[in-house]
Amino acid sequence: MVWKDYFPVWDQLTPMHQEKLAMSVRRRTVSKGTVIHSSIDCTGLLLVERGQLRACILSDEGREITIYRLLDQDICLLSASCMIQNIQFEIMITAERDTSLWIIPADSYRKVMKESAPLANYTNEIMAARFSDVMWLMEQIMWKSFDKRLAGFLLEERALEETDVLKITHEAIANHLGTAREVVTRMLRYFQSEGMVKLSRGVVKIVDSHRLEQL
Amino acid sequence: MVWKDYFPVWDQLTPMHQEKLAMSVRRRTVSKGTVIHSSIDCTGLLLVERGQLRACILSDEGREITIYRLLDQDICLLSASCMIQNIQFEIMITAERDTSLWIIPADSYRKVMKESAPLANYTNEIMAARFSDVMWLMEQIMWKSFDKRLAGFLLEERALEETDVLKITHEAIANHLGTAREVVTRMLRYFQSEGMVKLSRGVVKIVDSHRLEQL
Repeated sequence: MVWKDYFPVWDQLTPMHQEKLAMSVRRRTVSKGTVIHSSIDCTGLLLVERGQLRACILSDEGREITIYRLLDQDICLLSASCMIQNIQFEIMITAERDTSLWIIPADSYRKVMKESAPLANYTNEIMAARFSDVMWLMEQIMWKSFDKRLAGFLLEERALEETDVLKITHEAIANHLGTAREVVTRMLRYFQSEGMVKLSRGVVKIVDSHRLEQL
Repeated sequence: MVWKDYFPVWDQLTPMHQEKLAMSVRRRTVSKGTVIHSSIDCTGLLLVERGQLRACILSDEGREITIYRLLDQDICLLSASCMIQNIQFEIMITAERDTSLWIIPADSYRKVMKESAPLANYTNEIMAARFSDVMWLMEQIMWKSFDKRLAGFLLEERALEETDVLKITHEAIANHLGTAREVVTRMLRYFQSEGMVKLSRGVVKIVDSHRLEQL
């Protein structure tokens, strides 16, 4: 494990702090679909080695909205939210692909962070990045019309999956975007009628990515 | 100025760090309506002594949504966002009442924070609190219907202003809630027809707060 890939400030930590972190870290591999973290737990920091994770919030009625995704070398801080007072929201993290990751237990991380200015400042940066993701999302929700959001989502999926043929149900898309399946189906049909996508069971094929981008 | 009122970790700072902050701080009084911070600037940390500030984001079309409020002894971190990399959103801060505040320039604060683990960790806590505010707001927007949001807003205003007679226009409420004036007017009229509020020019009088709470 190359610590500097995750923590650019690694060299600024004392040897003792480096050792504390290195001693506490555990490796885990999870298969696609696994719930790695849910609201009640304090799982710890998740360091993605290879794979793809999704962080979402859940409504009381079980509706979901994706707040961000984590790819190779990304760090998930909010799965260790217990170590930061004042975090009063709960997220769920699931694997969207088979994923290998490192877990630093929240307690070990907190102890080092309390003593280490470089690590505390870097933690600040991670949180600020996620905060920015959420603010962006909120602006999307508030001010972008749904066609733009859906087009953006399809293009993002396309880039992530590296294919025009997305194997995803309308239900799953609705969960990602925090809306109802019917809303997604209606808009996808509109996109199809406009020749931008082609729909078949469980598949959305992107036919005209250029026009989706224009949206 | 009592630093401990704003920074509970004050005693954990070195005398040198305490002095650096104390030397840099400036006092300012602003009258109601003043824009204290807008997106382009990096004003610094705002420490509210007495008064009320509002932080909001703006859409390209000039629509607003309030993301949080700051009351006595609160600290605004995002007005110093330039000091934290990765913050990629812009906010505007206005005074909702005549307000006296202390300003710590971003550069001075950042220098101390880089060296001081207690201050960096406390900064983390402040950011986490604002992050939680925004997550709460997003859940409201996504999952609560507008009648609940409006009822919540009126009750919050009532608590802040300590009166049942709110001097606020529908336009201003719409800006707070990131929606159109017509939507607010329609819902307020519904509330009036249900005997929960009484409307007159520029005034919303809360008649039945109990029923608003039930919403």
